[in-house]
Amino acid sequence: MKSDIHWLLRIALVLTVVVAWIAPASSQTASNEWKVTDFLLDNGMEVVVIPDRRAPIVTHMVWYKVGSADEQPGKSGIAHFFEHLMFKATSNHPAGEFDRAVSAIGGSNNAFTSYDYTVFHETVAPEALEQMMGFEADRMRNLVLNDEVIATERDVVLEERRSRVDSDPDALLDEEVSATLYQNQPYRIPVIGWMQEIEKLNRADARAFYDSYYTPNNAVLVVAGDVEPDTVKAMAERTYGKVARGPNLPPRVRPSEPEQNTRRTVTLTDARVSVPSFSTQWVVPSYHTAKPGEAEALDLLAEILGGGPRSRLYQELVVKKGIAASAGASFSGTMLDDTSFAVYGAPRGSATLAEVEAAVTSEVSRIALDGVSPEELEQAKSRFVRSMIFARDRQSSMANIYGSTLATGGTVEDVEQWPDRIRSVTALDVKAAAGHYLAPEHATTGYLLPEAHAGN
Amino acid sequence: MKSDIHWLLRIALVLTVVVAWIAPASSQTASNEWKVTDFLLDNGMEVVVIPDRRAPIVTHMVWYKVGSADEQPGKSGIAHFFEHLMFKATSNHPAGEFDRAVSAIGGSNNAFTSYDYTVFHETVAPEALEQMMGFEADRMRNLVLNDEVIATERDVVLEERRSRVDSDPDALLDEEVSATLYQNQPYRIPVIGWMQEIEKLNRADARAFYDSYYTPNNAVLVVAGDVEPDTVKAMAERTYGKVARGPNLPPRVRPSEPEQNTRRTVTLTDARVSVPSFSTQWVVPSYHTAKPGEAEALDLLAEILGGGPRSRLYQELVVKKGIAASAGASFSGTMLDDTSFAVYGAPRGSATLAEVEAAVTSEVSRIALDGVSPEELEQAKSRFVRSMIFARDRQSSMANIYGSTLATGGTVEDVEQWPDRIRSVTALDVKAAAGHYLAPEHATTGYLLPEAHAGN
Repeated sequence: MKSDIHWLLRIALVLTVVVAWIAPASSQTASNEWKVTDFLLDNGMEVVVIPDRRAPIVTHMVWYKVGSADEQPGKSGIAHFFEHLMFKATSNHPAGEFDRAVSAIGGSNNAFTSYDYTVFHETVAPEALEQMMGFEADRMRNLVLNDEVIATERDVVLEERRSRVDSDPDALLDEEVSATLYQNQPYRIPVIGWMQEIEKLNRADARAFYDSYYTPNNAVLVVAGDVEPDTVKAMAERTYGKVARGPNLPPRVRPSEPEQNTRRTVTLTDARVSVPSFSTQWVVPSYHTAKPGEAEALDLLAEILGGGPRSRLYQELVVKKGIAASAGASFSGTMLDDTSFAVYGAPRGSATLAEVEAAVTSEVSRIALDGVSPEELEQAKSRFVRSMIFARDRQSSMANIYGSTLATGGTVEDVEQWPDRIRSVTALDVKAAAGHYLAPEHATTGYLLPEAHAGN
Repeated sequence: MKSDIHWLLRIALVLTVVVAWIAPASSQTASNEWKVTDFLLDNGMEVVVIPDRRAPIVTHMVWYKVGSADEQPGKSGIAHFFEHLMFKATSNHPAGEFDRAVSAIGGSNNAFTSYDYTVFHETVAPEALEQMMGFEADRMRNLVLNDEVIATERDVVLEERRSRVDSDPDALLDEEVSATLYQNQPYRIPVIGWMQEIEKLNRADARAFYDSYYTPNNAVLVVAGDVEPDTVKAMAERTYGKVARGPNLPPRVRPSEPEQNTRRTVTLTDARVSVPSFSTQWVVPSYHTAKPGEAEALDLLAEILGGGPRSRLYQELVVKKGIAASAGASFSGTMLDDTSFAVYGAPRGSATLAEVEAAVTSEVSRIALDGVSPEELEQAKSRFVRSMIFARDRQSSMANIYGSTLATGGTVEDVEQWPDRIRSVTALDVKAAAGHYLAPEHATTGYLLPEAHAGN
């Protein structure tokens, strides 16, 4: 089993920067070298082809527009469970044959599940692309879902939950912070699912889920690499094109968040924790739900406030005051629904967690009150732009950007116009975003404390 | 519009005691004077008749086994909205005619909605009973649900939410505490609904809800008063009996709560608050979900810890130490799913909220560590028993006990055997309940603070 639910977390954190890396390329080169091609198969499957001629490799990803936030009440974990089931036998291939085929040609493959999508991907030589498509198209509809497969794989997922969440104080705290931050939206439910609900997932649930969501018209194929769009199209038609269109799905309209009137805290005290830490979060708009320019301002706010070693939080708390071992901010913009903005920190030496938290809060207030300087803003924008050089170096980053954008309600144009939208953000926009969304009295804070930690 | 959502809260708080008041009566009198009769109509409607011959009045209640916790995601508020709609026109009676008929004969009527049920009731002279049944049977199936009715009444409910919740810091805090205490169960959603979801309720939602849940086989009729069971049966057959059975409903299995690993707080600071207060809650089993005897032990624990002026919290904090204006405990046992146990307090004079909270926590720990004395337990049991004298004095209390028990998975026998089950609770059971459920590090506390209140 190669699924990796934590991939998603890493992707969410790097996507913002990665989008900045790659997207300006298309407008700067002005040639067709980086031109992305986007088309639909007759059965409704969307295909995106991203040229990348530097090396004879190709990244092949299928993004299903279904994630944990699409699950029915009481059925948490089924989206992630399905990620596992997709590696089992189909009516055409025994379990493991796909994996072995990828290994035999020196390729790699994996899968991950998020709140909004479930993704399967392979990196192989271009000659093997059609073979990959054949395997993926096969498991889109031909999985063998019997009680034995369900029971066996459910045990694997339960064990995954025990080892990755239940034995990890950090992960346990994260779950309860999310469920406290989001009081109505489904992002409050962990992607891996609640233990007591995973235990009850059965064949009927799996069948219904598979038949609803694993269809060509609910999937986006992203191919990045040394390939021609026409060739990809022909291959896709020969493979995915043979899969019948599935039932139309209703719009992905989910319960939304009520206004937060309170200050909330969630504290986990655990003997396994050595250094205390905190994270304060707010519900903010995502790229999909924001008014024009607002998500871009939140992206730059996160960058200026705590995006790295040049950020205010790092400079002030880690470098100048020397009270923090870490301090930063993040904005998870690529989500279908309203998302979270976080600031975090951990003390160093004799400093207390309370001191670090107060200093972080003070930096948040300062940016909301006084805004950012034009120089800071320009530097943040240019850090985004400069980093694109690194993005081009990872073919899968490009595929991830397009896939995650398309799977959360965005378009190829949204990706391509993103650099221009970032350039249009003003210092006032950034100040307004901080003032409007990061109110200290309406925040949710998670505290991770060692057993002996007193007074906080 | 006579609906009163807050009735429910009051009922939940008094039910425990009221059950104790009335139930022992049937075993003590040993005659048929208090014998409750229970039967089904052919269409599946359950009927309970409670004799009460002291005065020529009768309480007539219809309990629908649907409440806010049965709502679909994103449709919060529809159960309570329906309580309102039931007072509008039917195809046989214009809006207001039922109310006027009740007034004309000097009766009273009302309705209330809870997490687990929606209730309509009238108190009238026995001669008017069949007329009441006729009106109730009519509106069970013949409501006129058009866009105009929906729009008008939705505005009424929105205004009700604004005035009763959004302008009341206490109610606002309660909502967010519940949504923090319950991270998966639907009790986290307010009965009145979230504003942004009430706004979107429409005719199609109302129609679907009405056709699913407003059926004889999903209702319990409770009649208490100076009436013979046979007469009631004949009347019920002539009225309700004519309503066709509705579709079978699936079992009321709702998402359950994951284990709580954290300490959570929710703080509302508001200029309208004059005295600070706190309430700490835990998720505990209800009468319907508990192992045998456990809910009874929680009931006695709440009584001993904070059930009134004789309780430990009151005696210690209000009387002896004089630091609290109020202090107490409550257990909402009559719920379909796991429920909440609460302790609360507010400071008096120069005492701080933190002092009061620490003293309450200390009393909780003391009972978990040292248990209760045999004398305390016996006194608590006998306070329950003595109070039955008062219960008999309110006909509607008796109807409420049977209705709420039957609407949350209990039976007439459960009510009747309850006093014996309470008598069987041991001091060890009470100690175990406190030790098992009231862990301070896995609790959720709500703080209501005045604007100027510093340091807590």
